[in-house]
Amino acid sequence: MAVHIVVLAAGQGKRMNSELPKVAHPIAGRTMLGWVLAAAQPLQPESTVVVLGHGADVVRETLPSDVVVAIQEQQLGTGHAAQIGIAALGDTLPGDVIVVLYGDTPMLTPSLVQELADVQADETGRLITAHIDDPSGYGRVVRDESGSVQEIVEHRDCTPEQLEIKEFNAGIYAIRADEFRAALDEITDDNAQGEYYITDVVAILAGKGDKLEAVVSRPEEVAGINSHDQLAEAQQELRTRVNERLMQSGVWMLDPQRTYIDETVTVAPGARIYPGVHLEGDTTIAAHAVVGPDSFIVDSSIGEGARVWYSVVRGAVVGENCQVGPYASLREGSVMEAGSKIGTFVETKNTTLGEGAKANHQAYLGDAEVGARSNIGAGTVTVNYDGVDKHKTEIGEDAFIGSDTMLVAPVTIGDRASTGAGSVITNDVSDDALAIERSGQREIPGYSHRRQARKAAKKAED
Amino acid sequence: MAVHIVVLAAGQGKRMNSELPKVAHPIAGRTMLGWVLAAAQPLQPESTVVVLGHGADVVRETLPSDVVVAIQEQQLGTGHAAQIGIAALGDTLPGDVIVVLYGDTPMLTPSLVQELADVQADETGRLITAHIDDPSGYGRVVRDESGSVQEIVEHRDCTPEQLEIKEFNAGIYAIRADEFRAALDEITDDNAQGEYYITDVVAILAGKGDKLEAVVSRPEEVAGINSHDQLAEAQQELRTRVNERLMQSGVWMLDPQRTYIDETVTVAPGARIYPGVHLEGDTTIAAHAVVGPDSFIVDSSIGEGARVWYSVVRGAVVGENCQVGPYASLREGSVMEAGSKIGTFVETKNTTLGEGAKANHQAYLGDAEVGARSNIGAGTVTVNYDGVDKHKTEIGEDAFIGSDTMLVAPVTIGDRASTGAGSVITNDVSDDALAIERSGQREIPGYSHRRQARKAAKKAED
Amino acid sequence: MAVHIVVLAAGQGKRMNSELPKVAHPIAGRTMLGWVLAAAQPLQPESTVVVLGHGADVVRETLPSDVVVAIQEQQLGTGHAAQIGIAALGDTLPGDVIVVLYGDTPMLTPSLVQELADVQADETGRLITAHIDDPSGYGRVVRDESGSVQEIVEHRDCTPEQLEIKEFNAGIYAIRADEFRAALDEITDDNAQGEYYITDVVAILAGKGDKLEAVVSRPEEVAGINSHDQLAEAQQELRTRVNERLMQSGVWMLDPQRTYIDETVTVAPGARIYPGVHLEGDTTIAAHAVVGPDSFIVDSSIGEGARVWYSVVRGAVVGENCQVGPYASLREGSVMEAGSKIGTFVETKNTTLGEGAKANHQAYLGDAEVGARSNIGAGTVTVNYDGVDKHKTEIGEDAFIGSDTMLVAPVTIGDRASTGAGSVITNDVSDDALAIERSGQREIPGYSHRRQARKAAKKAED
Repeated sequence: MAVHIVVLAAGQGKRMNSELPKVAHPIAGRTMLGWVLAAAQPLQPESTVVVLGHGADVVRETLPSDVVVAIQEQQLGTGHAAQIGIAALGDTLPGDVIVVLYGDTPMLTPSLVQELADVQADETGRLITAHIDDPSGYGRVVRDESGSVQEIVEHRDCTPEQLEIKEFNAGIYAIRADEFRAALDEITDDNAQGEYYITDVVAILAGKGDKLEAVVSRPEEVAGINSHDQLAEAQQELRTRVNERLMQSGVWMLDPQRTYIDETVTVAPGARIYPGVHLEGDTTIAAHAVVGPDSFIVDSSIGEGARVWYSVVRGAVVGENCQVGPYASLREGSVMEAGSKIGTFVETKNTTLGEGAKANHQAYLGDAEVGARSNIGAGTVTVNYDGVDKHKTEIGEDAFIGSDTMLVAPVTIGDRASTGAGSVITNDVSDDALAIERSGQREIPGYSHRRQARKAAKKAED
Repeated sequence: MAVHIVVLAAGQGKRMNSELPKVAHPIAGRTMLGWVLAAAQPLQPESTVVVLGHGADVVRETLPSDVVVAIQEQQLGTGHAAQIGIAALGDTLPGDVIVVLYGDTPMLTPSLVQELADVQADETGRLITAHIDDPSGYGRVVRDESGSVQEIVEHRDCTPEQLEIKEFNAGIYAIRADEFRAALDEITDDNAQGEYYITDVVAILAGKGDKLEAVVSRPEEVAGINSHDQLAEAQQELRTRVNERLMQSGVWMLDPQRTYIDETVTVAPGARIYPGVHLEGDTTIAAHAVVGPDSFIVDSSIGEGARVWYSVVRGAVVGENCQVGPYASLREGSVMEAGSKIGTFVETKNTTLGEGAKANHQAYLGDAEVGARSNIGAGTVTVNYDGVDKHKTEIGEDAFIGSDTMLVAPVTIGDRASTGAGSVITNDVSDDALAIERSGQREIPGYSHRRQARKAAKKAED
Repeated sequence: MAVHIVVLAAGQGKRMNSELPKVAHPIAGRTMLGWVLAAAQPLQPESTVVVLGHGADVVRETLPSDVVVAIQEQQLGTGHAAQIGIAALGDTLPGDVIVVLYGDTPMLTPSLVQELADVQADETGRLITAHIDDPSGYGRVVRDESGSVQEIVEHRDCTPEQLEIKEFNAGIYAIRADEFRAALDEITDDNAQGEYYITDVVAILAGKGDKLEAVVSRPEEVAGINSHDQLAEAQQELRTRVNERLMQSGVWMLDPQRTYIDETVTVAPGARIYPGVHLEGDTTIAAHAVVGPDSFIVDSSIGEGARVWYSVVRGAVVGENCQVGPYASLREGSVMEAGSKIGTFVETKNTTLGEGAKANHQAYLGDAEVGARSNIGAGTVTVNYDGVDKHKTEIGEDAFIGSDTMLVAPVTIGDRASTGAGSVITNDVSDDALAIERSGQREIPGYSHRRQARKAAKKAED
């Protein structure tokens, strides 16, 4: 028995007030739709179709290549969308099961989808139900005395007694292929909205004596996202799942509710993550690394035993036992070799620091190579941009760059070379040499009297 | 029928351990009392009186001009305060309704106050009740078999059976003016505390056959704030209300529980707000702006499509598509025109950046005008303060200020002019010119040997 | 009647995936075990023994000197551990009470431990119970019709009816010394796991007619920590307790759930703490100080009326009415005298700022003394490290250090002395003098044409 997936994802989400198609909104490193597809992944579906409408191109780009896209040009209802999706599945065998999901229910869990699709030999199909206090508008699940599902009664057809039922049909189905197709062929748009409803399938099947088994879920799992407050709830729920998984694997977190980690990120057991940390994209945190508080790391790797706090790190490699921050910004192409240090108010871009090299204070290093064990003084700048081109600064090993040195690139500083504080270095410096650019210090005695006099005059004016 | 509001706000809140009068504590951009007044605003009251005691002057300054202040010199109880407040209302018509609220219940909602004040033609008045597990000390709401309120029984007068009642009288009333005044005239201080209690009004009215209708609320709405832990709860509740409103209008938030926005702030639909953001005072965030993580913005406007992250912005204007941060500080009078950029470790004050101008790294710009498309090098400082006065720096369009340039104000840099890295510029620079202040670079060969020798000597000493 | 404490703390916590022994994990300023010992402190125990296994040396270092350590070499069960611990207590009198606690239940409250140990004259001992939905594996508390405890039935011995009981034995005991020792002597390892269980003591005592009284607790209080998600819950619970205590004493917090304060920290009433603040170690915050948002303060004192925001402060003293930040880093040995100011992108280490002194922008001050009322210009650096040694910078009172001054230590700047912007100061400066190191400014007219030409050439190349 093969399983086929159809995800209905054509809804526009007008209440989101967003130009982005609703199902393309990112949540913890996946799109909303991506979470639904991920929940279906363990079924190893034979084929997967996503039905798109508004913004189809934007959504299509986010999909894996083995997902087929079907377009619902006109919004004629969920039944219509399901017809389009199932038509795009191609051939199915009679015993196959077609699972219909929605692109805006990102909190679906794999285990729930698995239970839904686990249609037994003697079953025609299954549907998901849940209990909520106010199921107005939904079909109610009527059970007999033994507790098994008797029928689904649409809200409009409920008796007053049935309206009191809190268990509702979530509209998520797994049904044998042939029966599903046949039932969909029979639904009509003969209703107040003039739309084709997938829920009508249940009654049509029941009319043929085919009852669907109910799988009871928590209501959150099947909740559709239609507004930013609902999106925020989904973000919290999925963030919690990521963090629970990491903590159970041995990651320490001081406050998981305030720790924002994409599903795409790898964090090794033994790492410590403080609150206010965002880990995004293709990021890896090694064991015994300590990250945060309050750091933003995207597309970067943090090595074993490294510490990064109060810093922003983008597209960088932080080696073993390195230290970053507080208050550092590592931009694209920054590479820190083992034991190197980028301290406070330091920014780097497209720069390599050799093993044990240090830039502890207020430096800007762009397009630079810094050799092992070299020390970069406070306020040093690699003057890499001349208004037209960017140039490279090369610093040897064990060099000592004095505070406030301007390294006017292209320039090379030799091994063990030094520069005097406040120097503007425009020429290469030889190995072992000290380069200095400085005038003589002069003193003007009694200068403070002028300042005092001006202050006094100013005060007199007031 | 006109509505009049009396807010009792003379309580001292000794448990707050604060010199600030309790009702003047700020919560999400309003005072505690301000939230109560705002909840009553939709009633369009004919007149509003606030009864103040301790710290009246401080509180008075926070009030709108159409609110009358009455002073309760001695704390003789809520009934006494209500008498003072109602006396200050001036003339009322017999059919008018007087609503008595408390200044320390900031979680009151407008809808609850509206329902309270909606006294029907056949009613004398209404009161608010709520259910809590332990209503010790409060009057219990005794209802008859049909569920309508029979009487309010004060705690001290309750039968053991009545003590089990969880519904209590919250002490918040809307009563016809004449009946209210008459009943207040009859209350006495003949009780253990020797105070005049407004709750006695209920029994006095009942004695005349005038029952008050009960409006049932959630207990949070009527909770008085008497300590910092209760204040923290109110802050959370009101913060949640602000954020829910914004999200429902189309604002994206990653974590609304960690997003701190004053009621006074405007955020356009389509804006994105990350956690750890504080938006205060007269601040506006335009559509498609992205703010945070971890930023503090007060009395500023952020333009459409701008991005501000890991930054502090005070009294500034950030134009369309500008970029700020990570780690920037924009202070009073900072104006960024469209597409300009203030990068990392940059501070500005009283400074304008023209369209497309950039100060990407570690600059301090104070009292400066930077022309369109000009580029400010890393480490540049406008030396605006000479120890007595502040002076202005003017930079033309398309200028290129080299790294670590000291612009000693007053000074003017021409259009398309450049400065050499590390230069101290004390004289004006002409259009198109390069200004440079620098000595020649000298080299002392073999200098590293001295350092090595000293290191060796030091090691030998140890 | 004396009370003796035995804490069983030999468990390894393999699910923590940590090299640190489980009970040594820090939570809000104490170890996990430290919270358990603190909960027992109000009993003023005659003697306290902690039974350790794995990592005993690491744990021992965290213990007060009056706590005796006993080692359980082999993990033969809780009964075995209790035997070892009680043996190490030394002499006890028959009427004494021995309390057995666990090192991995940090949420125990002092009041619960006190109730547990409050064994009455007619009682043999007490045990703690709690209710949870699924007490599988735990002994159930069987009560008679009057509600008093009849027996504890181990899970394996429960009738189907007893398995439905939600109240379980938490395994925490206070028992008369002689009865406890005697009962422990009788337990065996004749069970599936081949371990000695302390729970068997209950049945043995019951066999002798000695029933234990049950003290009912909330299940959180007795929850053992075995994984990082459980540790995170304990951190949240204990953080909440610290913050509740502070708020009730008069400390303002905007969001206590996001405020991380060690139990060891003192915060005075009237202080204000914003979210994202971490206060650790030996730290004191005085009244009317305002801390945060987003600051990290360890082993430091913040004076009355001072404001520290968006800053990292380690081992520093911030005096009365000082201002720090946004974005400052104060490191070990930083001392700010009253009214001094450390502004934006400023780092200090081992440096004293005199009264009213200011370093407002982008300075690095290391190993410096700054006199009262002196002003340090933007970008100033004390060049304290020559690659071998650190040297001191001394600045007098009312001095005016120009922007981007390099103070090459050792160097002394006199009272009221000034330095010119961009100067490298290598020689001492006299009182009142201006020291300047600068060349003449030159101008190269029409330089921008070269840049334009190069830009044009580059464009032509593309």
